[in-house]
Amino acid sequence: MKKVFVFDDCNGTKDILGGKGANLVSMKKNGLPIPNGMIITTVACNEYFKSKNKLSEELKNEIFEEIGKLEIQTGKKFNGAEVPLLVSVRSGAPVSMPGMMDTILNLGLNDEVATRLIEVTGKEKFVYESYIRFVEMFSEIVKKIDKQLFHDVKNDEKFIKKDGSIDYIGIIKELKNIYLKETKKKFPDSPQDQILLAVDAIFNSWNTERSKYYRQINNISDDLGTAVVIQEMVFGNLNELSGTGVAFTRNPSTGENVVYGEYLLEAQGEDIVAGIKTPQKIETLKLKLPKIFDEFITITKKLEKIYKDMQDIEFTVENGKLFILQTRNGKRAPQASLKIAVDLVKEKVITEKDAILMVDPSMLSQVLNGSFDEKELKNKEVIYKGIPGSAGVAVGKVAFCTEDIVSGEDWILVRVETSPEDIKGMNLAKGIVTVKGGATSHGAVVARGMGKCCIIGCENIKINEKKKKMVIEDLKINCGDIISIDGYNGNIYLGEIPLKKPELNEDMKTFMKWCTKIKRLDVRMNADTVSDIKNGKKFGAQGVGLCRTEHMFFEEQKIWAVREMILSKDNEERKKALKKLRILQKKDFYEIFTALEGDLLNVRLLDPPFHEFLPKTSSDIEKLSKIMEISTKNVINRINELKEVNPMIGHRGCRLAVTFPEIYEMQSRSIIEAAIQCEEEGIKVKLEIMIPFIGGISEFKYIKKLVVKEIEKVFKKKEKRIEYKLGTMMELPRACLIADEIALESEFFSFGTNDLTQTTYGISRDDSTKFIEHYKEKDILKRDPFQSIDVRGVGKLVVIATELGKKVNKSLKSGVCGEHGGDTKSIEFFDKINLDYISCSPFRVPIAIIASARAALINEEERTKEEISENRARFKKNKLKKVKN
Amino acid sequence: MKKVFVFDDCNGTKDILGGKGANLVSMKKNGLPIPNGMIITTVACNEYFKSKNKLSEELKNEIFEEIGKLEIQTGKKFNGAEVPLLVSVRSGAPVSMPGMMDTILNLGLNDEVATRLIEVTGKEKFVYESYIRFVEMFSEIVKKIDKQLFHDVKNDEKFIKKDGSIDYIGIIKELKNIYLKETKKKFPDSPQDQILLAVDAIFNSWNTERSKYYRQINNISDDLGTAVVIQEMVFGNLNELSGTGVAFTRNPSTGENVVYGEYLLEAQGEDIVAGIKTPQKIETLKLKLPKIFDEFITITKKLEKIYKDMQDIEFTVENGKLFILQTRNGKRAPQASLKIAVDLVKEKVITEKDAILMVDPSMLSQVLNGSFDEKELKNKEVIYKGIPGSAGVAVGKVAFCTEDIVSGEDWILVRVETSPEDIKGMNLAKGIVTVKGGATSHGAVVARGMGKCCIIGCENIKINEKKKKMVIEDLKINCGDIISIDGYNGNIYLGEIPLKKPELNEDMKTFMKWCTKIKRLDVRMNADTVSDIKNGKKFGAQGVGLCRTEHMFFEEQKIWAVREMILSKDNEERKKALKKLRILQKKDFYEIFTALEGDLLNVRLLDPPFHEFLPKTSSDIEKLSKIMEISTKNVINRINELKEVNPMIGHRGCRLAVTFPEIYEMQSRSIIEAAIQCEEEGIKVKLEIMIPFIGGISEFKYIKKLVVKEIEKVFKKKEKRIEYKLGTMMELPRACLIADEIALESEFFSFGTNDLTQTTYGISRDDSTKFIEHYKEKDILKRDPFQSIDVRGVGKLVVIATELGKKVNKSLKSGVCGEHGGDTKSIEFFDKINLDYISCSPFRVPIAIIASARAALINEEERTKEEISENRARFKKNKLKKVKN
Repeated sequence: MKKVFVFDDCNGTKDILGGKGANLVSMKKNGLPIPNGMIITTVACNEYFKSKNKLSEELKNEIFEEIGKLEIQTGKKFNGAEVPLLVSVRSGAPVSMPGMMDTILNLGLNDEVATRLIEVTGKEKFVYESYIRFVEMFSEIVKKIDKQLFHDVKNDEKFIKKDGSIDYIGIIKELKNIYLKETKKKFPDSPQDQILLAVDAIFNSWNTERSKYYRQINNISDDLGTAVVIQEMVFGNLNELSGTGVAFTRNPSTGENVVYGEYLLEAQGEDIVAGIKTPQKIETLKLKLPKIFDEFITITKKLEKIYKDMQDIEFTVENGKLFILQTRNGKRAPQASLKIAVDLVKEKVITEKDAILMVDPSMLSQVLNGSFDEKELKNKEVIYKGIPGSAGVAVGKVAFCTEDIVSGEDWILVRVETSPEDIKGMNLAKGIVTVKGGATSHGAVVARGMGKCCIIGCENIKINEKKKKMVIEDLKINCGDIISIDGYNGNIYLGEIPLKKPELNEDMKTFMKWCTKIKRLDVRMNADTVSDIKNGKKFGAQGVGLCRTEHMFFEEQKIWAVREMILSKDNEERKKALKKLRILQKKDFYEIFTALEGDLLNVRLLDPPFHEFLPKTSSDIEKLSKIMEISTKNVINRINELKEVNPMIGHRGCRLAVTFPEIYEMQSRSIIEAAIQCEEEGIKVKLEIMIPFIGGISEFKYIKKLVVKEIEKVFKKKEKRIEYKLGTMMELPRACLIADEIALESEFFSFGTNDLTQTTYGISRDDSTKFIEHYKEKDILKRDPFQSIDVRGVGKLVVIATELGKKVNKSLKSGVCGEHGGDTKSIEFFDKINLDYISCSPFRVPIAIIASARAALINEEERTKEEISENRARFKKNKLKKVKN
Repeated sequence: MKKVFVFDDCNGTKDILGGKGANLVSMKKNGLPIPNGMIITTVACNEYFKSKNKLSEELKNEIFEEIGKLEIQTGKKFNGAEVPLLVSVRSGAPVSMPGMMDTILNLGLNDEVATRLIEVTGKEKFVYESYIRFVEMFSEIVKKIDKQLFHDVKNDEKFIKKDGSIDYIGIIKELKNIYLKETKKKFPDSPQDQILLAVDAIFNSWNTERSKYYRQINNISDDLGTAVVIQEMVFGNLNELSGTGVAFTRNPSTGENVVYGEYLLEAQGEDIVAGIKTPQKIETLKLKLPKIFDEFITITKKLEKIYKDMQDIEFTVENGKLFILQTRNGKRAPQASLKIAVDLVKEKVITEKDAILMVDPSMLSQVLNGSFDEKELKNKEVIYKGIPGSAGVAVGKVAFCTEDIVSGEDWILVRVETSPEDIKGMNLAKGIVTVKGGATSHGAVVARGMGKCCIIGCENIKINEKKKKMVIEDLKINCGDIISIDGYNGNIYLGEIPLKKPELNEDMKTFMKWCTKIKRLDVRMNADTVSDIKNGKKFGAQGVGLCRTEHMFFEEQKIWAVREMILSKDNEERKKALKKLRILQKKDFYEIFTALEGDLLNVRLLDPPFHEFLPKTSSDIEKLSKIMEISTKNVINRINELKEVNPMIGHRGCRLAVTFPEIYEMQSRSIIEAAIQCEEEGIKVKLEIMIPFIGGISEFKYIKKLVVKEIEKVFKKKEKRIEYKLGTMMELPRACLIADEIALESEFFSFGTNDLTQTTYGISRDDSTKFIEHYKEKDILKRDPFQSIDVRGVGKLVVIATELGKKVNKSLKSGVCGEHGGDTKSIEFFDKINLDYISCSPFRVPIAIIASARAALINEEERTKEEISENRARFKKNKLKKVKN
């Protein structure tokens, strides 16, 4: 099979051609002005790895054969004679890995070619600068020679001739000497040797530590391999009619439909990306080369239509002619992603479904969690104003390198400029600040990709990495000092600024409407108070999926009665305390039903072990002893009796109701009495009662009988019945394993995946901090199973339970009420396995709705096994990523 | 379908005919002298329950039809005329439920029949006494009238005539009056009415609370139902040539091959069973009726040949003619069961396999755990000597009724006599003492069935139930005082006597040889010391299935180094402590390998959380502070840092090795160094190394790499390699769920079912005492899942893991090393699911071997689906029992 093709002969997807390659081919086919070129496919790369990192003779022959074609297409020659052909050699993996792969420009140069090129162009400075850059890049990328060595040569005064001109030939000779000294080999003068060494280097760059790390944190398979794109050089640094630029078709921070980018006269693209020269706004192009600017704008619109997404474009103008070097879907800030998606639908470029698939819901948590409270801002002084690089706000301690960051804490990474070596630190930090670089610099691009707040271009901040401090005018900030940063406007504040609770803007509302239409899962909220419920309703929650009655117990008014109840020495005392509580709980439920206005309420009866409610301070103990009219010693004794070795798997959940049935009786009664009162007052009620920590069927039957009996008593007394469902929380492996038995008695399963994770993994969440970081450091654990559901273990139990349950009880409803209910990765799984609902905290509801809609679309395709349309496939990078964990 | 048959027409198994019925039919077919009779099948009983506890007209007709046949067979008439036919009506369930079902004797009597019977027999006293007994029994059983009411009448002086004779007719009239008063109905005079009411009562007795409880604790299905046996009365109380007896074909306490039983002249069987009259030894029959005695002995041998087991026979002699009333497999004491099984094989009555199936291994724990230490006995005074009723010894607090017993503690139940109401108490008690009754009284029979120690006939013990004390001469013993009882010789001691470790006798050794031949599972021992290993080897253990390295840590010599290691503040300190430990552990392993003489050693690397090793007392803390040369405050601080909220699911097992790899390195090194030293000295070594608490595959790979690397270092240094296997403990649900991944890396799975039960159930064993008793009391939990494996939950995970594992790794070995490895019920399950081995404490090894052999036979049949031979089926009651829980 052939593995090298000029663009015109290319066929295949980006799996084979790489992302950049596939785009270039598609641009070529769409008649866009791109330099001629050729692609070495990922197949060649993988064969290279298989044959112990050696380029086969067959591959070499193919490369030169296609270069021959390129020579014909360009009318240039690869070695010296006539018009010389110079090429760029770039990596191009199937998945975008920004800045992590290496590019070599101007390949094909040697002394003769340089001389010939000067003859052709008449531009000695341009040619030699290109030559120097080539030697530098080649040495650095192919042979890993420290670039500082070259830097010193270039600045050496001895190469300044007496007439003030520069001794380029001397510099080049010296650079090649360094190469010889470092590698014990002569610098390759033959363009053929150069290209083979370059291809070899690119293939190898797939396996550098930093590439591996990037793939790891992004869950990209190591098996993909990279393609190589070889393309005719066009020179942005040729003359004054030349230049280079990087631009987004829309503003990547705000989503505004205005081209956003940078342009640098007489320069090559690397100058911008590396942040070496500070570029000007794209608008400067309009002034200098208005026709080129207009052509460029037309092309951006065309590209968006073709790729149905906002594009990130690299282009070069060579001697007044525009070339598009590269286009790809642009990374963007979370709220920009929302605006872009909504606008593209309005512009009829994409459909609503496309829009849903385009937005990564996990990034939206930033939008929803994040802006500073404006009232708080008034008292805060802006200590610096940089350039907003990636939207959002963040608060944390200042770190000057990855090693400073203590994981589990909030840190802001402050760097002169970021490089691929900083990716780990950026991933750990809450926000990033860089001194150098523009909107398309490494730091800004990667931060947007990570959905993290970033401020760039803070040129007047002085960093002393050794002393671990930074200076802004006369303000000194040390490592560990807290700052707050605002990626919307570039403001940096000293100290901590509280975050404001988010509101939904119009774009979000529109988007949410589409999502609500598409999603299959019901999205409920975990809410214990009227204020929770009001928030959740606003965000679109479909009722309460988990109301933790014990949260009500902690209110000052109730906690003393709760403590009395727990520490009662006999039934008589306990009943007295329970009566107080019953009246208070009835009031709570009455208010909750009222706030819900007929929406579902799922109440979980008492779950935590008793000792959680008990007083800890001596003053509280004294207070309790007075209330209970017993000695403090007595109180302390009773508290000690309740201590457990492993409370998480101790006397809790429904086990409390087996020993003290009167507690669930009290709760059932207060819920039902409140419900009846509401119905009598014309307030509709939809009720589910949930029994926590069920492990066996006899246990559930016992509790069910108890609860139903109490409820029937209320019905009889009030001479009124109401509808309700009774079900189980599924949070123990055993419950999942015998779910078929439980489903015969239970009307719903609500998976408590927090506890289920604790028991399935045998990891106490309270104690895991002692070792979990070691697990992450050593890459034993890729993801915290408490954040994102462990599909293979805990998930398997959920699947087993749901299947067993629905087999015997067709009307059984199943859902998740643990924290995983608000995690986007987990939601995709829950949709896939056909759960009926998820429940999460009110502020996670919008994300859960969006994630559910996205999951519905992705899983619908998987379910129906329909041909995946090319458009959609582009937005679903997951398709190409092998889930590893 | 016909549901009533005279014996000669009966066909079918005991499922239909009931146990007693089937035996009678088979005795009849074998030509044994039994009274004529008929059977109402269990099918009729179940139809009765289905038709709302009503006897159908169809059934009534069938009953009278068959009674007609009985009249022809006996030559007697059921209502008065000619020679009257009197019958007994008995329950007969498919499974023996001793003393729990009710029997009515002499049914068919009324005033005319009595008169006629006096005419025929000439025995007024006998007839009226039979009549009185009938009225009493009928009233009590059918109408639940308090028997005390009758007792008072019988003893009323007004019925003693002036001539000293008794006014029987007056008594009977008075008894019938009581019946009328209590039931508002006339006592039924028609034998037909009597029989229908009796059948109705027997069917109902299937569902009394005490029957239900017995079935529950014995896992007998409620669906079986009972048959009714109606049989011609023969009268042991007819004259001096009459009598009644109960006998075992062998001694049920010792197993000796000598008929053992009791005989009572001129009495009915109920007199013996109820313990109302104290019977004489069976040998008295030899003196009074030598021919009958010889006939009886011949019959006992015949019965053993027919039923291939020791028999428990009820017989009656009527006017010099022997009738066998009932025969069944006799209950026996554990060590008797062993001797009987072995003897029967020697006598060629049964095969070795039959013998294995005949012995219930769970009962043998008594034999193996139990006799008093003779040295201790010397200092103890026997405070009473009763009759040994059931073998074994027990120590516990004195309880006078079920309510006295605090479950979870050791109690001895002391009763005047036991009745079915006491079954719950007997089940909870460690041993039983009764004042009244002989070797076949309720107490003795039930105790033997339960495998519990029992002493009977302690007639000089005076019990005051109200004051909760008993008096032996002038010694007062209160409820809660500790006594020790010896069921081998009937001795009762005050206070606690320590138990002696068991030895295997000759019968046991023979039996064990057969079992070892038959069993499929390997039986290993859990052993941590040389003395454990020596014991286990003696009992037949096949190597060590679990050697807990941490148990060695607790030895005085090591614990201080362990503590140093744990509290080290840095690697330097830790390494110093580890070096000390390494040398000590190497010595341990060297000794263990030597003791094993080439048998397998499976070593589990460190498992428990650190804090378990830390000093608790202030003097120990001080000592440690001196050793470590740090302040006590510092020691206390470090101890506090190690405290965990839920240590059972905290930082333990292989998690310790992820944070402190040097610990497993030290352990691996000392094991391998010891092994190499042994091999060099010519001592063979067979080694498995086991990693505890594995939850994920990356985790296991990490630890495996670490251990293998260290081992390779030792190999290299010593220039010698040894064979070893590396595997995982499976004790977390997640490990079981991803067992297919683990099995690719692990050479064996050792299920730690203790921990697996804790996590699957979410029950902390340490804390479960607070609620588990409530669960048992309320019948929510039938069995403690830590004692006998929870087949449906934990067992399911073991099955899932084994299947997943063996699918990808054919050579994977799997076994159990938790406490379930010594539990007979669990062993049957482990054999069934094809595990390779079990491992248990050395003293449980014999039981585990026997249980494994039994399981192999039972499961072999299930596996091959062979027709179950009638002989074997008899020994496997389980077949008829529906496993519940």
